[in-house]
Amino acid sequence: MSAVVRSPERWMARALVLARRGLYTTDPNPRVGCVLVKDGRRVGEGWHQRAGEPHAEVHALRDAGEAARGATAYVTLEPCSHHGRTGPCAEALVEAGVAKVVVAMRDPNPLVAGNGVARLRAAGIEVEVGLLEAQARALNPGFISRMAEGRPFVRLKMAMSLDGRTAMRSGESQWITGPRARCQVQRLRARSSAVITGVESVIFDNSRLTLRADQLELPDAEAIAARQPLRVVVDSRLRLPEAAACLREPGRTLVATVDGHDAERRARLEAAGAEVLALPAGEDGRVDLAALLAHLAEREAINEALLETGATLAGAMLDAGLVDEMQLFVAPTLLGGEARPLFALPGLETMAERKPLEILDIRAVGRDWRITARPA
Amino acid sequence: MSAVVRSPERWMARALVLARRGLYTTDPNPRVGCVLVKDGRRVGEGWHQRAGEPHAEVHALRDAGEAARGATAYVTLEPCSHHGRTGPCAEALVEAGVAKVVVAMRDPNPLVAGNGVARLRAAGIEVEVGLLEAQARALNPGFISRMAEGRPFVRLKMAMSLDGRTAMRSGESQWITGPRARCQVQRLRARSSAVITGVESVIFDNSRLTLRADQLELPDAEAIAARQPLRVVVDSRLRLPEAAACLREPGRTLVATVDGHDAERRARLEAAGAEVLALPAGEDGRVDLAALLAHLAEREAINEALLETGATLAGAMLDAGLVDEMQLFVAPTLLGGEARPLFALPGLETMAERKPLEILDIRAVGRDWRITARPA
Repeated sequence: MSAVVRSPERWMARALVLARRGLYTTDPNPRVGCVLVKDGRRVGEGWHQRAGEPHAEVHALRDAGEAARGATAYVTLEPCSHHGRTGPCAEALVEAGVAKVVVAMRDPNPLVAGNGVARLRAAGIEVEVGLLEAQARALNPGFISRMAEGRPFVRLKMAMSLDGRTAMRSGESQWITGPRARCQVQRLRARSSAVITGVESVIFDNSRLTLRADQLELPDAEAIAARQPLRVVVDSRLRLPEAAACLREPGRTLVATVDGHDAERRARLEAAGAEVLALPAGEDGRVDLAALLAHLAEREAINEALLETGATLAGAMLDAGLVDEMQLFVAPTLLGGEARPLFALPGLETMAERKPLEILDIRAVGRDWRITARPA
Repeated sequence: MSAVVRSPERWMARALVLARRGLYTTDPNPRVGCVLVKDGRRVGEGWHQRAGEPHAEVHALRDAGEAARGATAYVTLEPCSHHGRTGPCAEALVEAGVAKVVVAMRDPNPLVAGNGVARLRAAGIEVEVGLLEAQARALNPGFISRMAEGRPFVRLKMAMSLDGRTAMRSGESQWITGPRARCQVQRLRARSSAVITGVESVIFDNSRLTLRADQLELPDAEAIAARQPLRVVVDSRLRLPEAAACLREPGRTLVATVDGHDAERRARLEAAGAEVLALPAGEDGRVDLAALLAHLAEREAINEALLETGATLAGAMLDAGLVDEMQLFVAPTLLGGEARPLFALPGLETMAERKPLEILDIRAVGRDWRITARPA
């Protein structure tokens, strides 16, 4: 425990650091951290570790014991006021005799936002909201999107050459980027609730779309990889081979298709291990991507979805405004004008129609470079 | 003048800074700087400013006057020993009574390399060679390439979207990048002896390929833009329109074509202001690019050539191993899979054939990013 008096920002920053420890494990819950401070000293701290286990506030209160009475709680997310698998945290803070609660952000669920704060205030506890809110929001883009927008946060990952190519004309693509970049992709999978791909990518690469503990390079890799993200294959014409490697891996594979396919084909895929989800077709006769995302949020509690796919599905998602962030791993190599493009964007014919992006970050990853961007 | 005793590296670094002042003006001569030091103090300095005017050593000796006697000279390039438009600098250093000469790099011309050093040593002057040599070489990539390889240093500049596209399918490309990037391109032209482009780029963009003083954003912009780089249009089938804007600009336009075109067409182009250069055709019937570069080095004294062109010529130059450096200005935008590629590399079909690059630098340029790379 520190004897130095720190500013409220420093205490909240500590709570954010704690919250981040749950980056790979809290799914489908948000990552949350809590610090209890009394007389300028930290008397307790905790973070949410895993769904079904206690929330951050409960861990921090247990850590503080009697010292919680009269303390200030710094919490990265508004304490819950509802009875879920654990009791309401707002209630626990009241019972522990906490004097003040500083909350980084309100609950993103519009149906319950403010309830926790109201419960605390009703009990006479002083509450402040909004300290380091942007940082707190950045920790849980998926949970926030699911609660506030009813769809997952979609992060598009692509490995590309410097001339914007993801594969040779033949489809050959292993490996454009190096091992450091591939480790980072594994970590992107690890923080995601689902990995979404197109059936063509699965057919060509026969990719497993799994988390591999040995590639995560994290101390608790085995525990993290015990939870496999949901694999979602967009397959309008139900072409997924029954022999696809991803169907034999631990975890679930959801094949998203359109209504009206023959029942026998569907039954064979299900027998091979797939779960087939038939959705109404969009105007182009293909899977309605917005409907798929709504389903994933509402029925599968998908927070962050990692889109790992080819130019057609990537372009369609982008065109539909369904991509929230891009992580482009750029290899220092050229594949030439015949190689496969990053995005098919049919109909984009003039400069005025180009898709503006905002580049958030560029950094070296081994011999490759990672560009983080989002549609502007 | 500094009273602080500095290391030899600091004096040579000062000489390099001086040399760089000639970046835009010494062509076709190299950029050279010189510092004279006696008793730990700088007693004179100079740099080569313009072809036909005195060399760096002469300026520094004039600056020092009698103080040059017994001094150490730091020079970024081996002093010349031949009588050109100015007297030999090695002789001037001997006559001034300099005690020691430190040279960053030898003369890159193999026919005279070492002669200046030998002349100094014959006069009893101590000579050291190689201090900050890499930095000195980086100042004059074109002069070194012309002298040592018999061809210019070719710097490829491209403006591209993040998905590796340089123009829409229609050819529309103005403007992919922003004003900061375009200013940097102007400065690249300003340091180049020639700008090379393909006839298709000229036909489509009707680009002038000139230096524009108002876009350089340099204090001496007018003086710099008084020298226009040689414009070289690669035009195997002699399709350049007589009305092309570049033919009416100050400076020269060289149209590189193959032998055997009809004399009348050639005469009309020449009447419009072009100089037509007929070269033997390469195996593909097009201009032999290596022969063109040899011509530019030997007959036109081209040091640095800036290649500003489309995918076909860029790909051909790259395939022929004639690109030394790439400066890619990347705009935060997507143009889609139908837009024009960076490089046509016909025949590149497998990952094993990809062109590896070495990325030297990535930095922000306004809202765009500049990637400096070279073939690995």
